[in-house]
Amino acid sequence: MTAPLGRYEAVARDMLAAARPLARQHFRTPLAVERKSDLSPVTLADRAIERAMKQVLDEACPGHGILGEEFGSRDADARHLWVIDPIDGTKSYIAGVPLFGTLIALLEDGVPILGVIDMPILGETWIGRAGEATHLNDSPCATTQGCRLSQATLFATSPDQFAPDGLADFDRLSRACTARRFGGDCYSYGLLASGHVDLILEDGLEPYDFLPLVPVIEGAGGVITDWSGAPLTLASTGRVLAAATPALHREALEVLRQA
Amino acid sequence: MTAPLGRYEAVARDMLAAARPLARQHFRTPLAVERKSDLSPVTLADRAIERAMKQVLDEACPGHGILGEEFGSRDADARHLWVIDPIDGTKSYIAGVPLFGTLIALLEDGVPILGVIDMPILGETWIGRAGEATHLNDSPCATTQGCRLSQATLFATSPDQFAPDGLADFDRLSRACTARRFGGDCYSYGLLASGHVDLILEDGLEPYDFLPLVPVIEGAGGVITDWSGAPLTLASTGRVLAAATPALHREALEVLRQA
Repeated sequence: MTAPLGRYEAVARDMLAAARPLARQHFRTPLAVERKSDLSPVTLADRAIERAMKQVLDEACPGHGILGEEFGSRDADARHLWVIDPIDGTKSYIAGVPLFGTLIALLEDGVPILGVIDMPILGETWIGRAGEATHLNDSPCATTQGCRLSQATLFATSPDQFAPDGLADFDRLSRACTARRFGGDCYSYGLLASGHVDLILEDGLEPYDFLPLVPVIEGAGGVITDWSGAPLTLASTGRVLAAATPALHREALEVLRQA
Repeated sequence: MTAPLGRYEAVARDMLAAARPLARQHFRTPLAVERKSDLSPVTLADRAIERAMKQVLDEACPGHGILGEEFGSRDADARHLWVIDPIDGTKSYIAGVPLFGTLIALLEDGVPILGVIDMPILGETWIGRAGEATHLNDSPCATTQGCRLSQATLFATSPDQFAPDGLADFDRLSRACTARRFGGDCYSYGLLASGHVDLILEDGLEPYDFLPLVPVIEGAGGVITDWSGAPLTLASTGRVLAAATPALHREALEVLRQA
């Protein structure tokens, strides 16, 4: 690890300081909603926030690459790559639901070494740094220990996010758990890092959705991988499994492998 | 209308003042979760809050009846009946998600004349009084006008809440809308009253889930009925359709009738 993580965390905090007023300013105001080519919604708020975050990066880390949800990538082959999602949960944002978040990852040689989940309305910020304890605001946080699969509640944002074969896997894993719950986007991962949520299975995510989660989950004692148990990278397929403990993650992987 | 609504609203506010500290005190603390006979979860927080609200009612309105989620009914045939749900969205509450709410309705001769949706963590309180404008905190609020079904996003708490025939209806209505979104419990109805959500279809609700919503939705310009378009009463089946406008409600009813 060669990155000066403290300095990069300060950059991420500057990005949040630029992003939050914009997220709050446009929240619950009438917003024109466009549909992107994948039919996901986008508003001027998404774009204004990403632009503001990029401006911070341009000044603070001019040699670094950037991959954003709305404007694509720049210098994507740089050793240090920032991966940002200005509003994760745009559907929530449009509906006035405060469960949307701003996500930031910093990759070094392709590995996420810094991850941020920021909830602008709720005032909750999870920051994960590789090899260190994840913090929620100013306090370290940790996942719940000892939860077995049969006691777990399984979280996903929506059944509609799964491809047909993935939905069958999700249903099978649901039946191995005690209950399931929908909604949440990135917030469920923050709650997992803080010990309130045990298990999440999602499909159809993009690198800017899942790479920022990796240091947050791992620094809290959890495990986050793709559905085969492999680490999440820029090349991952968008199928994400997150669990509070290695044991729970293994139990869930076993059920997924029964396909 | 003979009820002194202002006085009864003050009683409801006293109930909230007793309920909120308990909801906040137990939020994100380790709670034993029991399963009721219908497998819905309940915690000591649900019970403590309902007990505190009943105590306020016993002192303020000794001649009134009470129907609560956790402890059943008392004097259910009284002319005035309070219908209360201490924590609507117990699954959210257990998972540390602040989208749970406390619900209060006052029925006069079976008709909801006062309705309250209170979000203890988010600090948002919707109060509806029959024949008057609904308020969010201290400001009047209103539904969005002019949304057509083909532009609407359909909300429900979970696909798992629907009986099989109801799920077919929900899927058909989903296809007539632009998108659908899960999660939310009572909060979606508050957001509908404030103009952020257009359409909600739910199944499997109980009187304490839906009766408090009626004055809130109606006083904001919306329409809330069962799936046949009939008013919601203590005897309703738990199938609820809420829309921002009468026109949108009619469009949705037409799709439901195509079964």
